[in-house]
Amino acid sequence: MESWNSQWSAWMNSPVYFGVIGLIIAVFFYFRVKSLPDGNETMKRIAGYIREGSMAFLSRQYKVLAVYAAVVFVAIGYGLGWLAAGSFLLGAFLSLLAGFVGMKAATFANVRTTEAARTGVKANALLTALDGGAVMGLSVAGLGLLGLGTVYLIFKDHAEVSPILHSFAVGASSIALFARIGGGIYTKAADVGSDIAGKVIQGIPEDDPRNPGVIADNVGDNVGDVAGMGADIYESMVAAIVATMAIAITASATQIPQLIAGEDATNKMVAVGLPLLLSGLGLAVSIICIFIARAMKAMNPATVLRGSLIFPPILLAGVSFIVMNMLGITQAVTAVIAMGAVGGAIIGLVTDYYTSSSPVMKIARASITGAGTNLIQGLAVGMESTAIPMLVVAAVAYLSNKYLGLYGIALSAVGMLGGTAVVMTVDAYGPISDNAGGISEMSGLGKEVRDITDELDSVGNTTAAIGKGFAIGSAILTVLALFSAFNMEVNHVREADGLAVMNLSIIEPNILIGILLGSILPFLVGSTTMLAVGRAAGAIVEEIRRQFAEIPGLMELKADPEPKKIVGIATDAALKEMMLPGMIAVLAPVVVGFLMGAAALAGLLAGALAVGATLSLYMANAGGAWDNAKKFIEKGKLPGHAKGGDVHKNAVVGDMVGDPFKDTSGPGIAILIKVMSVVSLLIAPLIAKL
Amino acid sequence: MESWNSQWSAWMNSPVYFGVIGLIIAVFFYFRVKSLPDGNETMKRIAGYIREGSMAFLSRQYKVLAVYAAVVFVAIGYGLGWLAAGSFLLGAFLSLLAGFVGMKAATFANVRTTEAARTGVKANALLTALDGGAVMGLSVAGLGLLGLGTVYLIFKDHAEVSPILHSFAVGASSIALFARIGGGIYTKAADVGSDIAGKVIQGIPEDDPRNPGVIADNVGDNVGDVAGMGADIYESMVAAIVATMAIAITASATQIPQLIAGEDATNKMVAVGLPLLLSGLGLAVSIICIFIARAMKAMNPATVLRGSLIFPPILLAGVSFIVMNMLGITQAVTAVIAMGAVGGAIIGLVTDYYTSSSPVMKIARASITGAGTNLIQGLAVGMESTAIPMLVVAAVAYLSNKYLGLYGIALSAVGMLGGTAVVMTVDAYGPISDNAGGISEMSGLGKEVRDITDELDSVGNTTAAIGKGFAIGSAILTVLALFSAFNMEVNHVREADGLAVMNLSIIEPNILIGILLGSILPFLVGSTTMLAVGRAAGAIVEEIRRQFAEIPGLMELKADPEPKKIVGIATDAALKEMMLPGMIAVLAPVVVGFLMGAAALAGLLAGALAVGATLSLYMANAGGAWDNAKKFIEKGKLPGHAKGGDVHKNAVVGDMVGDPFKDTSGPGIAILIKVMSVVSLLIAPLIAKL
Repeated sequence: MESWNSQWSAWMNSPVYFGVIGLIIAVFFYFRVKSLPDGNETMKRIAGYIREGSMAFLSRQYKVLAVYAAVVFVAIGYGLGWLAAGSFLLGAFLSLLAGFVGMKAATFANVRTTEAARTGVKANALLTALDGGAVMGLSVAGLGLLGLGTVYLIFKDHAEVSPILHSFAVGASSIALFARIGGGIYTKAADVGSDIAGKVIQGIPEDDPRNPGVIADNVGDNVGDVAGMGADIYESMVAAIVATMAIAITASATQIPQLIAGEDATNKMVAVGLPLLLSGLGLAVSIICIFIARAMKAMNPATVLRGSLIFPPILLAGVSFIVMNMLGITQAVTAVIAMGAVGGAIIGLVTDYYTSSSPVMKIARASITGAGTNLIQGLAVGMESTAIPMLVVAAVAYLSNKYLGLYGIALSAVGMLGGTAVVMTVDAYGPISDNAGGISEMSGLGKEVRDITDELDSVGNTTAAIGKGFAIGSAILTVLALFSAFNMEVNHVREADGLAVMNLSIIEPNILIGILLGSILPFLVGSTTMLAVGRAAGAIVEEIRRQFAEIPGLMELKADPEPKKIVGIATDAALKEMMLPGMIAVLAPVVVGFLMGAAALAGLLAGALAVGATLSLYMANAGGAWDNAKKFIEKGKLPGHAKGGDVHKNAVVGDMVGDPFKDTSGPGIAILIKVMSVVSLLIAPLIAKL
Repeated sequence: MESWNSQWSAWMNSPVYFGVIGLIIAVFFYFRVKSLPDGNETMKRIAGYIREGSMAFLSRQYKVLAVYAAVVFVAIGYGLGWLAAGSFLLGAFLSLLAGFVGMKAATFANVRTTEAARTGVKANALLTALDGGAVMGLSVAGLGLLGLGTVYLIFKDHAEVSPILHSFAVGASSIALFARIGGGIYTKAADVGSDIAGKVIQGIPEDDPRNPGVIADNVGDNVGDVAGMGADIYESMVAAIVATMAIAITASATQIPQLIAGEDATNKMVAVGLPLLLSGLGLAVSIICIFIARAMKAMNPATVLRGSLIFPPILLAGVSFIVMNMLGITQAVTAVIAMGAVGGAIIGLVTDYYTSSSPVMKIARASITGAGTNLIQGLAVGMESTAIPMLVVAAVAYLSNKYLGLYGIALSAVGMLGGTAVVMTVDAYGPISDNAGGISEMSGLGKEVRDITDELDSVGNTTAAIGKGFAIGSAILTVLALFSAFNMEVNHVREADGLAVMNLSIIEPNILIGILLGSILPFLVGSTTMLAVGRAAGAIVEEIRRQFAEIPGLMELKADPEPKKIVGIATDAALKEMMLPGMIAVLAPVVVGFLMGAAALAGLLAGALAVGATLSLYMANAGGAWDNAKKFIEKGKLPGHAKGGDVHKNAVVGDMVGDPFKDTSGPGIAILIKVMSVVSLLIAPLIAKL
């Protein structure tokens, strides 16, 4: 027993070690990428604009978030203690740090990928983009595990461990919320705005150097798809671990499944520690997979990237089997982890199907009869695409519950997020290669260069779809876990105070009313974010129009555009417009919880979960499908209907609607339900007795 | 006490009496309308086509439904007894009967409205359309109350009263489901199909007599907006009454609020009878309001119609106050009825706002920058428009619960539906005046005639929006009531069998999984109905194209088109396409209930309610807003952008997407959640013990 205890302690230190190892490798990749050649003067100048714009957005966003964090810090400090408030800050700070480092790496990697492509070696270009993405991937997972692992080791026996852990997750969630929504608004406003102005008004091609909006468009890829996505995934990982721990901490001895033979206290300790341990193993496995992918750089990029998404879950299941065996823990844990991982992979593949296969072809064909039919088909595809992912989540939850109860449901989310570092690497690879293509176009490099960057980019689009499926699928499972943790926390606090257990029956009027109210919120966030993109894009169009009108010689390439003004407009708009949806997400559970009580809040979360999960899948997938339907026609795959023709124009309409759908509103809604759940978990002790 | 008992019995006979009175008046209106002059030969011929096509659809749909009804009859008979099975048939038959009579009246009234307009007397035209609509309105409410009232009087002390009442509601729901979805597919396929073919392909104006699809378009107004809407409203009224009764029947003595001083048995009797009594009073009040509206025929049609939607609730509250006073029943009942009525009115007005005021102007303005921005703005408006109606429903539920508990929530739905006869009258008025305009156009009548029918039609569009708001709002409240009734029924059955009460806690994994599964269904019905409209419209476009190509002289008005072929295609398509969404609605609760048990089914209903309520509001209101944005431009209200210009074309794209949104998918989803709840209530005793 003594030896088991020391073995367990050693294992429980491992997440921190793996986190540190991950970070060391991230630093190594960072400097390796930075040391690569970054091209000719034009490329350097353009890349400089993009880096500058990206960093300017981040630093201004950080100032806004600092105010927010200060307010919440004080609120948590007074409400739940200053240790919890400090943990909140740490959770938030590490998210910002990961975003900062990862985005800096991405904005080095983009132009160096172009340069590698210019020398004609595709393998080097792939490797550069991959390494750039790995900085983000390893920072996200490494900082998350280092932070949460350290908090756990220090406070695991502290009386206040619950609020401390929950606050860490709230810190992560808050940043993710604003990063995702602000970044999403920025990226789509810049994209849609410069597209409308460039193509429609001035009649110049995409990524044309004369268009002052192109830099902002490329900045948007970084702030939206790198920094925003990174904060989102970091939050998911942290929230899944914390939710599982929270269930284990608040559950009574009989509610915790039998994980290990022996005393109840040992069983509980194992239950609390496992999610962290398994996430650590997930990072270890991910590091191995990243190196395997690097070694395969000469192969077809699509194979490399797909492989690196599918291998980690399988490897993690294997490693889990061995470690559980060594520790004498039930293999039901491995089964649950594997189900989560497999479920995530299936959701990813289904997302890929709906955004690339026959549904996309149908949308392309529907464009022949008009923009209206393109729209109807795309909306219907999006709606249909919600079914299988939700069924998969339900099946994973059902089976996990059979093995390990509610605790198992939470643990399956940890399993689904086991490959976080790799998923994020591949996700960040996308905008890097997209940027690389943009830089080569703006720098006037030849077709051979563009061919390489285009291939890298198009693979990135597919893997982005898979990654998005992962992100939303794991968000739903995580919310399920957080929701359970919230309800258990409420009754845990009530029991500790000698109050009757709250029934939380679905028939309670307060719960029903909460469900009605909760169902509104995803639609409100969807509406506000869509309109925000529209308004911001409109402002950008106006400014581009002004520049073409007022800068003599711009159209004839005799004068330079003023991209910084566009970057400034997009930054201002994104920071302003992220407030309303962000505040809805943070304040709705607080208001309902304190005014109407815990039962109504439970209903609110359930309603928001049901609507938010399906609505975000619908919007994300419809958007992805429209995008690829447009590209399908652009590639000449619809006989008789070339790029620039009427049918293509119809498809462009769908793509324009799809832009905010897939990159702003859809992900924004997914994060809404996560934030609401995390905030509810945090305030549970304060409202449990109302 | 003796005298109170006889007074109560007398009052409880009144719903049947009011039902009969309503039906007698309906018969009177029917023959009055039929006796009016029906115009020249061309008008007669065209009206004959429309009537024939409408009736052909109904009779073919009835044949399909007969098979369905036979299967369900046998299933209910074996599962719950033959009395219940008979009650199911009665509920279904009365729905069909109301639809048949009402639609026949509507297809007489349309051409007679045109003829009245031709003689130049607007008041007579208004009166004809109103009387035609009143046949439907009074049939729906009259047959509902006569049927349900009779069933209640005969079986109120029968041991099987619960399944008998529930089966009646299932009968009503089933018909409503197929009538609404089939009618919705028909009307939009014909509308979109003939619009695309006529305007876009052949370049001829709307309602042009050369277009063979115009007859089908007018038939669609009848089968969708008259028969479909009628079955829907009939179902809502029946379901609200039955849900309230079911709660009263299954509740224990302590769960029923104190409605009247005296014994528990008396209190229970009052609780069971009240929803029927109040609906009867609602019909009485509605009859009075219909006659007031008729007397005001010379006034501005908009005033008359709006007034007839707003007066009945106020009057009903007054009448309820008097009757409750006479019977010594708490005025909390009146308060709840009034809140339901006022809530319904607010939802109607909010719907009107979102589909006619500044949101519509914004959509029209967004059309200037393209179809994409028109779409984004419309989708965002639809999303935003879900908030206030849901808040209103939540507030009504919250307050009703404060007064009278869960029973109060159900009763507030009865209050919201108190004016059913008037709401349906005004709803049916819409397609009649729309048809009247179509007939005048196709018959080549002059501008003066068209001006009158246009005015009547445009008022109808506003009231249709209000009516739709009512329908969805009351659907949500009704589902809330049915949902509660289902859960109470489950535990009622378990208690009777000495089983432990099912906790139905929202934290139960089965309930959570049910919520996930339930959230899929509205999206699936949305997707299948949208695609159904698309496919059916495509087939119609093909046939119209064929006729223009193969019938020599059609374009030059020298040959007649073949409208019956289009009618046949639309009929075939609608009947075929209504199967899948219909089966999803009926089978989903049965499959989940029997396979996974009552808790999972409760979750399924909650998830479907949250998503279905908001999604149907979103789709219905977005569609209405797009439609009116297009009309806004057509009326020349957007300076510099006339009908037929690019901006108008952009708005037409939004309207095309909005067509299935507002008239097929939106209402289809609303009825989905009603049917699921009613079916669940029916099977509750069978699955309670699983």
